[in-house]
Amino acid sequence: MAELVCGLDLGGTKLLALVVDPADPDAEPVVASKVPRPSGDVVSGLAAAAREVIAVAETETGGARVRAVGLGAPGLVDRDGVFRFGPNLPGVVDRPLARDLGAELGLPVAVDNDATCAGWAEHERGAARGANHSLTVTLGTGIGAGLTVKGEVLRGAHGYAGEPGHMVIDPSGPECRCGRFGCWEQYASGNALGRFGREAVVQGRAAAVMEAAGGSVDLVRGEHVVAAAADGDADALAVMGQLGWWVAAGLANLVNVLDSEIVVLGGGLVAAGDLLLDPVRRAFTDLPMGGNRREAVPVVAATMGERAGAWGAALLAADRLLS
Amino acid sequence: MAELVCGLDLGGTKLLALVVDPADPDAEPVVASKVPRPSGDVVSGLAAAAREVIAVAETETGGARVRAVGLGAPGLVDRDGVFRFGPNLPGVVDRPLARDLGAELGLPVAVDNDATCAGWAEHERGAARGANHSLTVTLGTGIGAGLTVKGEVLRGAHGYAGEPGHMVIDPSGPECRCGRFGCWEQYASGNALGRFGREAVVQGRAAAVMEAAGGSVDLVRGEHVVAAAADGDADALAVMGQLGWWVAAGLANLVNVLDSEIVVLGGGLVAAGDLLLDPVRRAFTDLPMGGNRREAVPVVAATMGERAGAWGAALLAADRLLS
Repeated sequence: MAELVCGLDLGGTKLLALVVDPADPDAEPVVASKVPRPSGDVVSGLAAAAREVIAVAETETGGARVRAVGLGAPGLVDRDGVFRFGPNLPGVVDRPLARDLGAELGLPVAVDNDATCAGWAEHERGAARGANHSLTVTLGTGIGAGLTVKGEVLRGAHGYAGEPGHMVIDPSGPECRCGRFGCWEQYASGNALGRFGREAVVQGRAAAVMEAAGGSVDLVRGEHVVAAAADGDADALAVMGQLGWWVAAGLANLVNVLDSEIVVLGGGLVAAGDLLLDPVRRAFTDLPMGGNRREAVPVVAATMGERAGAWGAALLAADRLLS
Repeated sequence: MAELVCGLDLGGTKLLALVVDPADPDAEPVVASKVPRPSGDVVSGLAAAAREVIAVAETETGGARVRAVGLGAPGLVDRDGVFRFGPNLPGVVDRPLARDLGAELGLPVAVDNDATCAGWAEHERGAARGANHSLTVTLGTGIGAGLTVKGEVLRGAHGYAGEPGHMVIDPSGPECRCGRFGCWEQYASGNALGRFGREAVVQGRAAAVMEAAGGSVDLVRGEHVVAAAADGDADALAVMGQLGWWVAAGLANLVNVLDSEIVVLGGGLVAAGDLLLDPVRRAFTDLPMGGNRREAVPVVAATMGERAGAWGAALLAADRLLS
């Protein structure tokens, strides 16, 4: 009988939960759910979601048992599964999520950063499969990353590795929610695309973008730029090119340091497809040190979709908690 | 009888060579030499320097044999010991240094990036001893780095990991010798300190700096800023603070990605001691993501001195080539 694992991904607005058989590399989740982020105590909300998918999975498989739980959480998670801090999870500071959720569920729990989990899913099951040194960057409202070195998750000394969103890339740039100025997240995220779009509108360009947003510059978001670019609007395409350059510049910084063999881009922005990937690839070619004198590093779209974080959390839990 | 290893460090202007007993953690080099960088064929020059120290070492130890050679080279070195490219070693492109030097010497040769070697020396024998996740940054004319993850050198997919000097940190900044704009090296190296000094002089500040340079703004170099700062000149100290902020900003970018447990600063600039380290530490405290909500990461001076690269090359060669 298969040993199953539950994976949870606690996002800024939603909570994904699923159950998978980690030993089968081709297995799809037995069950998956997506609910709004719990509003009360975070551990109670996580436990409720986990119990629900676990019950369904154990019933549907006719007796297979869930042996462990993995959780991806939006912020700094230390090696003991303590959630230290994260701007998208206000009020949760130094909370021992692994311990508390484990006690609530009566199961061993492993916790890691959500983007680290997503990167691990791409490495184990998705676009980075077979690559020992992979870099998965999640471009959503903000930026997250999951890194592998020699086929293992790069956790770092305390468990905090992989936070390039707060790499300063332009100290004279906009203030970041982290309190510093000019973080990469201010230039290469969904929020940044919206700002670039509004700037273009204010400068009298990108009428199609404003139209997509219903005629008000204040309502322009990244999705409106993408929509106008998809319609072939030249100004919107130029804004996508601007975003692509900044994405590529940060990726090159990371590849200079890590020498990754593949870059996987995930997160909501990647729904734009080649409208994003083409300008990123064009700019990225020349940016790493050595340029075309070194091996080209492919930049590809993630394939695990919105379940990547929960799936990766489950696989990490299997690695860390099951023998 | 001890098995000895020869280490070579090919710099921009000089070549260091030494022989050590890699099995003895407290051993000093049996012999060490420092000569100008060979002007002819790079392999012939390296072989001549190696033969000289090897002969001395084998004679002085009364029969111990040198079993392997390690070389630190200034640029991208792949996992096969091929020197791919480096701005400080013009004319040497895709040269199989490990193979060619090995054939010349009749000994196995391992080659890696010079700053990677220096970082390994700090990890094995110096300021980062005992740290599994260390970050050694060499601040000289340019910037190099040597990274360890889980107690091993971070080499990356091809061997190129650890080139943060060409991390873009201000795209509107000065052009770098690599062809890009605003690389960290343009803000946190010895060359950058000289430029900051000249800018201060041109703005009518830092008279003491100009005086240290003999009265001409064009002659101001980093060493003159350091000299004036050492004399307590407030303007020169402010320039050191400017440099320190940029050093800290790049270090924070790296710690955000790598989660290092210690940062070691080496290279010529570190001769400035606390004149450099104090402003770096002040700025660094708040810069990594999470600020004081995460464990403090000490920033310390390297202890292996100018021999770090050759020493680390020898130790890497021992690890890779001797059983």
